[in-house]
Amino acid sequence: MTQTPDSQLAVIVLAAGKGTRMKSALHKVLHPIGGRPMIEHLVASAQELEPARMIVITGDLREQVEEALASRAEFALQDKQLGTGHAVLQAREALSGFHGEVLILYGDVPFLRSATMRAMRERLHESDNPAAVVLGFRPDDTRSYGRIIADDNGTIAKMVEHKDASEEERACNLCNSGVMAVRADVLFALLDRVGNDNAQGEYYLPDIVNLSTADGQPCAVVETADQAEVTGINSRAELADAESQWQQFKRAEAMDAGVTLRAPETVFFSWDTKLAEDVVIEPNVVFGPGVEVATGATIRAFSHLEGASVGEGCEVGPYARLRPGAVMEKNAKVGNFVEMKKATLGEGAKANHLTYLGDATVGAGANIGAGTITCNYDGYFKHQTVIGERAFIGSNSSLIAPVKIGADAIVAAGSAVTRDVSDGELRLVRGEQFVKPGWADRFHDTMKKRKAGK
Amino acid sequence: MTQTPDSQLAVIVLAAGKGTRMKSALHKVLHPIGGRPMIEHLVASAQELEPARMIVITGDLREQVEEALASRAEFALQDKQLGTGHAVLQAREALSGFHGEVLILYGDVPFLRSATMRAMRERLHESDNPAAVVLGFRPDDTRSYGRIIADDNGTIAKMVEHKDASEEERACNLCNSGVMAVRADVLFALLDRVGNDNAQGEYYLPDIVNLSTADGQPCAVVETADQAEVTGINSRAELADAESQWQQFKRAEAMDAGVTLRAPETVFFSWDTKLAEDVVIEPNVVFGPGVEVATGATIRAFSHLEGASVGEGCEVGPYARLRPGAVMEKNAKVGNFVEMKKATLGEGAKANHLTYLGDATVGAGANIGAGTITCNYDGYFKHQTVIGERAFIGSNSSLIAPVKIGADAIVAAGSAVTRDVSDGELRLVRGEQFVKPGWADRFHDTMKKRKAGK
Amino acid sequence: MTQTPDSQLAVIVLAAGKGTRMKSALHKVLHPIGGRPMIEHLVASAQELEPARMIVITGDLREQVEEALASRAEFALQDKQLGTGHAVLQAREALSGFHGEVLILYGDVPFLRSATMRAMRERLHESDNPAAVVLGFRPDDTRSYGRIIADDNGTIAKMVEHKDASEEERACNLCNSGVMAVRADVLFALLDRVGNDNAQGEYYLPDIVNLSTADGQPCAVVETADQAEVTGINSRAELADAESQWQQFKRAEAMDAGVTLRAPETVFFSWDTKLAEDVVIEPNVVFGPGVEVATGATIRAFSHLEGASVGEGCEVGPYARLRPGAVMEKNAKVGNFVEMKKATLGEGAKANHLTYLGDATVGAGANIGAGTITCNYDGYFKHQTVIGERAFIGSNSSLIAPVKIGADAIVAAGSAVTRDVSDGELRLVRGEQFVKPGWADRFHDTMKKRKAGK
Repeated sequence: MTQTPDSQLAVIVLAAGKGTRMKSALHKVLHPIGGRPMIEHLVASAQELEPARMIVITGDLREQVEEALASRAEFALQDKQLGTGHAVLQAREALSGFHGEVLILYGDVPFLRSATMRAMRERLHESDNPAAVVLGFRPDDTRSYGRIIADDNGTIAKMVEHKDASEEERACNLCNSGVMAVRADVLFALLDRVGNDNAQGEYYLPDIVNLSTADGQPCAVVETADQAEVTGINSRAELADAESQWQQFKRAEAMDAGVTLRAPETVFFSWDTKLAEDVVIEPNVVFGPGVEVATGATIRAFSHLEGASVGEGCEVGPYARLRPGAVMEKNAKVGNFVEMKKATLGEGAKANHLTYLGDATVGAGANIGAGTITCNYDGYFKHQTVIGERAFIGSNSSLIAPVKIGADAIVAAGSAVTRDVSDGELRLVRGEQFVKPGWADRFHDTMKKRKAGK
Repeated sequence: MTQTPDSQLAVIVLAAGKGTRMKSALHKVLHPIGGRPMIEHLVASAQELEPARMIVITGDLREQVEEALASRAEFALQDKQLGTGHAVLQAREALSGFHGEVLILYGDVPFLRSATMRAMRERLHESDNPAAVVLGFRPDDTRSYGRIIADDNGTIAKMVEHKDASEEERACNLCNSGVMAVRADVLFALLDRVGNDNAQGEYYLPDIVNLSTADGQPCAVVETADQAEVTGINSRAELADAESQWQQFKRAEAMDAGVTLRAPETVFFSWDTKLAEDVVIEPNVVFGPGVEVATGATIRAFSHLEGASVGEGCEVGPYARLRPGAVMEKNAKVGNFVEMKKATLGEGAKANHLTYLGDATVGAGANIGAGTITCNYDGYFKHQTVIGERAFIGSNSSLIAPVKIGADAIVAAGSAVTRDVSDGELRLVRGEQFVKPGWADRFHDTMKKRKAGK
Repeated sequence: MTQTPDSQLAVIVLAAGKGTRMKSALHKVLHPIGGRPMIEHLVASAQELEPARMIVITGDLREQVEEALASRAEFALQDKQLGTGHAVLQAREALSGFHGEVLILYGDVPFLRSATMRAMRERLHESDNPAAVVLGFRPDDTRSYGRIIADDNGTIAKMVEHKDASEEERACNLCNSGVMAVRADVLFALLDRVGNDNAQGEYYLPDIVNLSTADGQPCAVVETADQAEVTGINSRAELADAESQWQQFKRAEAMDAGVTLRAPETVFFSWDTKLAEDVVIEPNVVFGPGVEVATGATIRAFSHLEGASVGEGCEVGPYARLRPGAVMEKNAKVGNFVEMKKATLGEGAKANHLTYLGDATVGAGANIGAGTITCNYDGYFKHQTVIGERAFIGSNSSLIAPVKIGADAIVAAGSAVTRDVSDGELRLVRGEQFVKPGWADRFHDTMKKRKAGK
């Protein structure tokens, strides 16, 4: 295998066009796949190559793109969209004095793998010393893709647009993905010579290949066998297809790792979902970002988890919602219609029904009765509820934070608790009991008459 | 394009057979697709042609069909099911004196498009002046469909049943859908001459074509390229397939219009669902009839909406249930395990957790705490709850309607409020607090012994 | 048709290997499909043949397998995994003195049908009197399966491993499933002669066929046309595929029986789910084991049922969770975010919103208000709640069991009821009402300043 070159790498990501076909106020490259803006998938893959520079070309809705990638990239503005060649030229100033290789990617082609990027870069360093490397692919349906005419060594004889291609050239199914790696010292000089004498009046990046070849500086092609790597996303339907493919990949990966997905097609992952061996996932589970599930835990049907940590042997759901900051320790249990947010459930603790635990810490072995609400918000600030080990919170209780319930304490059902409860104490907040014999019978009589219109 | 003829149109919809293979007490044509009885899809399409008459032929379970279409059609009874020709004959009396064209449709072939109906009608007015127009289609699998032998102008030489067809005739893949447009002045006279000398002993409508042709009155065929238009529904499995195709069509339509469906295959629409641009729909969302969602709203996973209006920028769910009469104004938020029914949530108001809002009006900016219940029903009548702007309803409160909570008012957590609360007032309904130190410890001791059987 | 032989049958199920590719602490054959360990599907099918003996060969994690099948099988230990022939040999002692036929099955090939088992057994009794019968199948992709070379009568000329097969033999697509029926009086003697002179060093069961044939005791093949019958499960992905196929089969079966599945692909059955005619199932419903639903009931979206009985005309959900012991009598209704466990809802009774009914009996026509909780657990024992006919339980009530609410009684909203309520009585448990005019306004002022950091 070729060594990673010790030259420097600059990555240019084209992200100027907002994507009119998306019909969105959100820039196309920020539409999420697997819970993460599509361009971030690409940037993360590119960062595995440890580039010295990462330059994103922005244009439409540039402030959205710049905010999303703020700390991870530099930005260069393409104020008019005059084609891919013109877009890359906008990085000239930023790269003045830069030597090494430039990798040119597209923000709406998010699934290019780092291994492919690496292969393209390494190809620049092979003995025939190409000026540029183009990523080619062989689609089943070559449609109107530009063709790459190359010899067996991958040296490109000619790049040709579909409409200009001869019958013989069209018979070649090696197509141009648009992705390129180019030696920095020739890139901008070649781009200066690219013209816009075509139907769209645009400056096309791939034109540098024919220019370079004509100069006697040959270019090469690297192929990918996986068309998903070079598939662009231009509409909501293509976005949905990309999401679907990505989810299928993640599901297969989880099953390979020893996770049971009873109905894989109904489980939705985020890019960073971590599931240990022998986790069982029932149908219809949605993982938002930031979830980690330990060995032997079961996530039951209709559960929704984001930013949550689920410990060994825990049982979640059905219908459990774990929001960011939810932490379940070993063998804890969260049941139906229960929401946790910034809350920890200690080892073996249970909140089985119709409960809201927000800004709370629940000790090991505690039992939170059905209908319990931690009243964590006063309209202005959030407050903490702390529940001791083995405490028993009766059903339909309201724990008005800040409040502390001691270890082994009991809160009687229906209590609204405003003051701390000591260890081993019973707290009972109960209204006066009014018993009205026969009242209901009289009420029924009256109402039945009223209903009958009497 | 041909002008719409200024002759009158009568539509006959065959809906006498209840559909034994459905194994249902509900008439086949009333089984819903996209939340609407299948026959109503067809009637709605036919009504786009503004027919002068709409006659539905009923038989089995006629009262069900007549009730469903009461105001939209006339009905004629076919008391014995003696074939399609016999069914159409039942409309003779209703159409006595009617001149123009008759379009003959099938209640269990619900997805015939108005454009196709129009094309059939217009074909009757072309210069060759056909007596009848048959709708043909070319299925991949011609199975045992009857064949239409026609010339290049669409003039029919012969209609032939599959079992009677020669090898050469079977090689023709133009099949008879059964749908026809016929000149009213010849329809019933031709039908009178149709016999029932066949294996089933039935009177077949298509026989009029050969009779007319033999009379020297030629008939014509119009083709549809979309087989879904002429697919009949005879079993629950075919019903499910039709629903699936219809849903796929609606999903594609929504995405084209700029709606994000993160997992299109998990979102279920009703026939009248209206979604604006930049609406985001997470996985597993069900839309019942009557839902409208404005720009920029997000419908999170596991939400269920019927008869609801969701304003700009609103956030719904996960696990939100909006029932008929739920109205969310701009930027309102309904969270998990919350149900709304005949209730309005003002601009920016929030009901985030475990709440029931029924027969209620919530002012702008109000905050409804977790576990709040509007007690709208006394067992006989429903009553209103009115909550003022910026009011704060503490968690686990019961608002016993009719009741009014003023603007900026606060209801303390756990309160059961029976009387109105003024603007800016605090209402606190709280039981007496009993503190029993050590009681819980003693209880645990006793119960552990009992559990151990001591 | 051949008569069932009156000889005795012994079934041997191979289940020694835990299935390394599953990456699980649970033995492979215990992973569930349709809510039941896969090996139990197989054992249930085999039991339809009323075998005299059922011997499961265990090895890895034997205590798990033995516990799961405890009362339904005998067990023989294979302590080293030396191949299928060696595995069957472990049953020798258990079967000493046994005469009749031995059917050899695989715990990870769970969907072999009893009809196929029966056909194999009967083949042993045909006039050519074969020593053994092998189950063959003809896969689309023959991969590296062993081939069965047989004549038109199904008499086997030769069994050949793929790697040893000639071109001509490989052209034969009749493959060996491994499933066999063998006459008990020859089985073990033949197995003694099987060697392990092969790449894996294993003793292969199918080798007995060639040995027997060479002895002049011919063997025969029986074919299955359904490859699903002989598909083995070795990984979580294969487990998911098997579950998916099984679910599709159950969905089709339900629709054939007159059940509407609006979106069949989103409904998940258990092996014993029973649905009557005209049951309507909306999208996203999960049936755990032990559910029975009567005619005309509707199970709405996002419902989850286990061990529950749903009566005629009932309405369940959306978002209803019925746990074991939930019984809904005719026309009862359970709505959103409601959980029932060991609870009966009488005819026409309703629990429409946000309720927990555990260890409870609710009389006919009773109305359980939103947010009602039966407090059935004291941390040590469960207690009963009994609610009378036509009782009205106000919203947000806590019924602290053991407790009895009389017929026609009313519990006022927000009450925590600890003592029995008589028939026709009103019980109101209500805290003192504190009215603090202007307090909220002052609170808002203070908090706004604090929030602003003043």
